[in-house]
Amino acid sequence: MYAPAGVKTDAKKVPVPDRMRAWVLGDPEQLILTDKPVPVPARAEVLVRIDAVAICATDLDVIKSGPPALIKGGLPFNKNWTPGHEYMGTVAALGPGVDEFAIGDRITVEIHAGCGQCKRCRMGMYTSCLNYGLNYGEVDKGHRANGFTTDGGFAEYAVNNINTLIKIADTMSDEEATLVVTAGTSMYGLTELGGLIAGESVVVIGPGPIGLLGVAVAKALGAYPVFLTGTRDARLQKGRELGADHVINVTKENAVEAVRRLNGGKGVDYVVECSGAPDAINEAGRMLNRGGKICLAAFPHDPVLIDVAHLVRNNIYIYGIRGEGKSATHRAEVFMREKRFDATKIHTHTFMLEDLPEAIRYARDRVEDAIKVVVKMRDAA
Amino acid sequence: MYAPAGVKTDAKKVPVPDRMRAWVLGDPEQLILTDKPVPVPARAEVLVRIDAVAICATDLDVIKSGPPALIKGGLPFNKNWTPGHEYMGTVAALGPGVDEFAIGDRITVEIHAGCGQCKRCRMGMYTSCLNYGLNYGEVDKGHRANGFTTDGGFAEYAVNNINTLIKIADTMSDEEATLVVTAGTSMYGLTELGGLIAGESVVVIGPGPIGLLGVAVAKALGAYPVFLTGTRDARLQKGRELGADHVINVTKENAVEAVRRLNGGKGVDYVVECSGAPDAINEAGRMLNRGGKICLAAFPHDPVLIDVAHLVRNNIYIYGIRGEGKSATHRAEVFMREKRFDATKIHTHTFMLEDLPEAIRYARDRVEDAIKVVVKMRDAA
Amino acid sequence: MYAPAGVKTDAKKVPVPDRMRAWVLGDPEQLILTDKPVPVPARAEVLVRIDAVAICATDLDVIKSGPPALIKGGLPFNKNWTPGHEYMGTVAALGPGVDEFAIGDRITVEIHAGCGQCKRCRMGMYTSCLNYGLNYGEVDKGHRANGFTTDGGFAEYAVNNINTLIKIADTMSDEEATLVVTAGTSMYGLTELGGLIAGESVVVIGPGPIGLLGVAVAKALGAYPVFLTGTRDARLQKGRELGADHVINVTKENAVEAVRRLNGGKGVDYVVECSGAPDAINEAGRMLNRGGKICLAAFPHDPVLIDVAHLVRNNIYIYGIRGEGKSATHRAEVFMREKRFDATKIHTHTFMLEDLPEAIRYARDRVEDAIKVVVKMRDAA
Amino acid sequence: MYAPAGVKTDAKKVPVPDRMRAWVLGDPEQLILTDKPVPVPARAEVLVRIDAVAICATDLDVIKSGPPALIKGGLPFNKNWTPGHEYMGTVAALGPGVDEFAIGDRITVEIHAGCGQCKRCRMGMYTSCLNYGLNYGEVDKGHRANGFTTDGGFAEYAVNNINTLIKIADTMSDEEATLVVTAGTSMYGLTELGGLIAGESVVVIGPGPIGLLGVAVAKALGAYPVFLTGTRDARLQKGRELGADHVINVTKENAVEAVRRLNGGKGVDYVVECSGAPDAINEAGRMLNRGGKICLAAFPHDPVLIDVAHLVRNNIYIYGIRGEGKSATHRAEVFMREKRFDATKIHTHTFMLEDLPEAIRYARDRVEDAIKVVVKMRDAA
Repeated sequence: MYAPAGVKTDAKKVPVPDRMRAWVLGDPEQLILTDKPVPVPARAEVLVRIDAVAICATDLDVIKSGPPALIKGGLPFNKNWTPGHEYMGTVAALGPGVDEFAIGDRITVEIHAGCGQCKRCRMGMYTSCLNYGLNYGEVDKGHRANGFTTDGGFAEYAVNNINTLIKIADTMSDEEATLVVTAGTSMYGLTELGGLIAGESVVVIGPGPIGLLGVAVAKALGAYPVFLTGTRDARLQKGRELGADHVINVTKENAVEAVRRLNGGKGVDYVVECSGAPDAINEAGRMLNRGGKICLAAFPHDPVLIDVAHLVRNNIYIYGIRGEGKSATHRAEVFMREKRFDATKIHTHTFMLEDLPEAIRYARDRVEDAIKVVVKMRDAA
Repeated sequence: MYAPAGVKTDAKKVPVPDRMRAWVLGDPEQLILTDKPVPVPARAEVLVRIDAVAICATDLDVIKSGPPALIKGGLPFNKNWTPGHEYMGTVAALGPGVDEFAIGDRITVEIHAGCGQCKRCRMGMYTSCLNYGLNYGEVDKGHRANGFTTDGGFAEYAVNNINTLIKIADTMSDEEATLVVTAGTSMYGLTELGGLIAGESVVVIGPGPIGLLGVAVAKALGAYPVFLTGTRDARLQKGRELGADHVINVTKENAVEAVRRLNGGKGVDYVVECSGAPDAINEAGRMLNRGGKICLAAFPHDPVLIDVAHLVRNNIYIYGIRGEGKSATHRAEVFMREKRFDATKIHTHTFMLEDLPEAIRYARDRVEDAIKVVVKMRDAA
Repeated sequence: MYAPAGVKTDAKKVPVPDRMRAWVLGDPEQLILTDKPVPVPARAEVLVRIDAVAICATDLDVIKSGPPALIKGGLPFNKNWTPGHEYMGTVAALGPGVDEFAIGDRITVEIHAGCGQCKRCRMGMYTSCLNYGLNYGEVDKGHRANGFTTDGGFAEYAVNNINTLIKIADTMSDEEATLVVTAGTSMYGLTELGGLIAGESVVVIGPGPIGLLGVAVAKALGAYPVFLTGTRDARLQKGRELGADHVINVTKENAVEAVRRLNGGKGVDYVVECSGAPDAINEAGRMLNRGGKICLAAFPHDPVLIDVAHLVRNNIYIYGIRGEGKSATHRAEVFMREKRFDATKIHTHTFMLEDLPEAIRYARDRVEDAIKVVVKMRDAA
Repeated sequence: MYAPAGVKTDAKKVPVPDRMRAWVLGDPEQLILTDKPVPVPARAEVLVRIDAVAICATDLDVIKSGPPALIKGGLPFNKNWTPGHEYMGTVAALGPGVDEFAIGDRITVEIHAGCGQCKRCRMGMYTSCLNYGLNYGEVDKGHRANGFTTDGGFAEYAVNNINTLIKIADTMSDEEATLVVTAGTSMYGLTELGGLIAGESVVVIGPGPIGLLGVAVAKALGAYPVFLTGTRDARLQKGRELGADHVINVTKENAVEAVRRLNGGKGVDYVVECSGAPDAINEAGRMLNRGGKICLAAFPHDPVLIDVAHLVRNNIYIYGIRGEGKSATHRAEVFMREKRFDATKIHTHTFMLEDLPEAIRYARDRVEDAIKVVVKMRDAA
């Protein structure tokens, strides 16, 4: 039985085996289902029994190209570890001294636990940790980004810093709980734009998961009107269901003109760019009124032509965000808990852990219009 | 004699004639010295006897192409008015009800008095007034940007909203006082970056007037180390005199590498881009550490290729600023008053009002290494 | 007919008479129903046909003791004007140049239009205008606080700066619309506490109108859990209907102990004090965890003993707020428009204009458990 | 020799003995000079060879009454440990993985290293750590406040989290370096008031060390004018030397009247209260103009009568601060390094470690007008 020294377990509530099934990344795109020891939580950590994990576009990048943020010193591709960052589960064991959580608590997770000792972490900017990724090279500075730089959720168990745990309500299903961190990313973007967006006009560009939940979170915060632009009607319809006041199919009309027309001839206050399209920043700039703000939650991989003069002449600010900082995930969870929006509208498919490659194929190729594909660890009792 | 109804004058302290000399803009680049009536201050306004005015690169743009900010509805080129926005002088008459200033007060000016009734003005963002420029077309919403959209300082007198006046110390010369609004623009940029920059590392790109005073203001606020990059050694030397800890001539070494090397191998916290060079934003991004910030106080006129992915992956924020908002000019004036830096180091030439075209030539063509060219209205007593 | 020069009217849409009925304050507590000319809107102003006005405890203070904020120079009791500040109505005429509103627009109002020229107004702090009240003494600096220092809403018509108008939805009744500014005051308090309160624990002390809508606004913003303390079960029940997760009757249990027990043994993040009770600040301090914040939306009239040491040792911040600043009323209106809470739950009685003294008696003496008493100008068509 | 496993030492640069002299607190006020083992740095920690330590009024409280902040659960008086928190020294050994500092670095220290895992720490509010003091009872949550809750500086060596270290310039003497954290506390207070105080009027009440350096830091940040009030002319004279524009002896004139008169009849923007006098908050309120702010860096031990109505009616905010948060110490150090003010003006006496009781007597009883008393560990080489 699993009983590491200094770790608190409770076999009656949550029995824990010694070994577990886990997908391990070898070379790029090479995922192998293995059997390995259940990991051991240290101080300020718990062991999580993973119940479900969602697949994110960033997982596909990580599996193909390495960590999503830039690693100091350009470390090589991270091998022999377990990706997957959008997971939820049950607290299965407590590291030394942990009393913030109890065995059996249902929780969902955030990705980032900063090193806690760099300048950014000390400012509360743990997703911008200056020691990002310095935990799989020679030096371990304590930074953790489960599923990016440390073992993540395509496995039966994972260790998490208590900073990254969020208790969830019994009324929230496992599948819904995997979506909290996505909503948290949208919330982080809106937080950095100022947060107090009730009655402010917001455009979301790109109806991917972050964009769709961006619509939902913006509405929950009281934004009005909220616009969603995209190329596929089915996705835009989802946006409408999640609260968009106006949707614009950019294959049928000019997005900038449509936004300004629908907004009474005026520019909008905020744009949340979630498409990564090459011209999105320029479009965003032309949608805004003077003094407006853009959040970049996505990006084109290659450099793009930007009309910088337009941005500066209009006193526009741009916030490139990465991840789910400033405890935004907690704020997102509350809105989901209180059913202010129904995030499950973007959950489309479910697979079992052993079928991860197929689940990934669905997510990557948008098979059957897949949006969010969730992987479950075991059959429901 | 000048004695408009409701206006308070004091001929013993500051005699005011009925008419004055003023340069008036006709077609683009066509400046004509005319004789016109001295203007009359309204409620919350004063009449300023202009004693000196500096020439800014933006004046050259305004004279050639029209207002620096984007005007709603794309109004035509503004004709038959007086440009010039970096002026200082003496309060010569008070509009109805004004008791905040006294006749004889020496003052310098800011450019922008917002309309006071739009959403941005109500937020305190008067340089991003949504009614920007709506005072020379059909509608007058009360916005004023003297020298940009309303009569400015290439004349003997001007009317200013009391919001735009800053009292200056007797120990500050007329010439130095014309530089306050330039320092105020640098201060605004640093304010938007967070303001609390003592001990933070800052790179200023581009040793023009805003860049050079950006170095000075950053040092006054305690920034350390402060880097200045540019192409001309004479300008970089000025930067050193104004406090730069390190200067980098980009024709001789790679700026990004030099900054990182001189900063102990680490990225910096802030970059203030004042060059408008096509690759400046990309360079700025590579100079920064994760979570860093860029202020854009200048811009290239044509779209440029930007590595957006780098910015987003590093959680970098970008602030396009226009002008001298958030009362930054008041903060700049205090540092100049207390001689924390010597802004006069960038004042290189002086001309009389009638010689404005020659003064402009010096400024535009950098004749005799001109940096700031000042125009005086009358010979010293 | 009403047709002042420069003012736009439209007799077909909203006919306006020359004279109107208005209550005028003489000596303290002396309200007289008079007939006086309909006022004329100036630049940036409109004429509002008042349709309904609510009575606020501050009205009672104003009628008895003078303006609620401290007036510079200690001006005498303001006589011969019309109180009433929580009104709504229909745009009836437009001052020169106004195109932001159209005749016939249904609107509700905020109280404060700052002078626009003092330091606080320039920072966006128009409710803290340094020229507060300087419009009924010798000098008029342009400050307006309708119903406090300038003519307000116990009349058929009033003039309002466009800054103070908020368009309302057709789905909002007149009575509900009079409550927007009350919700706006609660929103302002929560804004100053940081605004991003989703998932944060909040205690509201005192179930008066601002406290009850404070509960509603806090819940709309996602606060959890929200506690309400008070002495009357009927009021606490209203709080529950408006979203309070826990209510505490302080005549039956110790509020500090109850809050801590119900919050899992921990202190809370924020307290909004709306009772004015002598010991409320000390109680608030003991309810909070370290680094918590208190908003004071009410106050005891006499000095009270405060345990300052407790506040400082716990790094607690206290925000004394007055009115509805930072455009909070716009944010409140959106949540009400979207029916996130039902403010009409606090509307208990309705009277006609001629019955204002009786309406005031109901409000002051809480006759029949009155909470919000609304006065209507005319019978529904 | 000192050579703990996993710890990096360099006996040539900084030899470290196995045992050291240290003062240990027994019962209240009972300090005993003992011999104990040199402590061992863990991950993210270093061993500091202490070169000098200053005595603070809080040390006197700690020695008499226990920790300065409120400890969860009301833990008993902390015994058998070493107080002293204003120390500086030389990095003597590195804990596992530390490369941010090198052996031989001269450093000064901050007091607080938050637990890094509570809500406040995650927000960057490490001085308001919710696990404050949970390191000398049953549970150790990782919070450290050296000299308050963990071993501090009245000893030859101490262990410090790297978060709490600040490199100092060679041009700064040991004595001056002990004053950095005091200046950092003043800086923290001014940071919480908004930080951008150039050209703003500031009153400092109380010319103790934090008040005197508060004057110096406010001036360094550009505040103007800066007032200092107190009862002793010698202290006020120190304030003048540190930059106060006006000093007011409250035994000779009414402080509120004097401030308003000297400030041109207007209230001031900010008050930093450092006296703990019973009526200081009321005085502060009456010194301020509407919308002003008060920082409480001191407090009376017993509850005091506060005119809350005045504060709320003027929209005044109050910030009770404890310690040196938000990395303010780094900002203070830079201004001292650049000689913007001469903190050594408040250093009056020096003793050797063995004479700590006498040093404390000087500090407590203000013998020979003592302000800051510094204790050195060894004679200068």
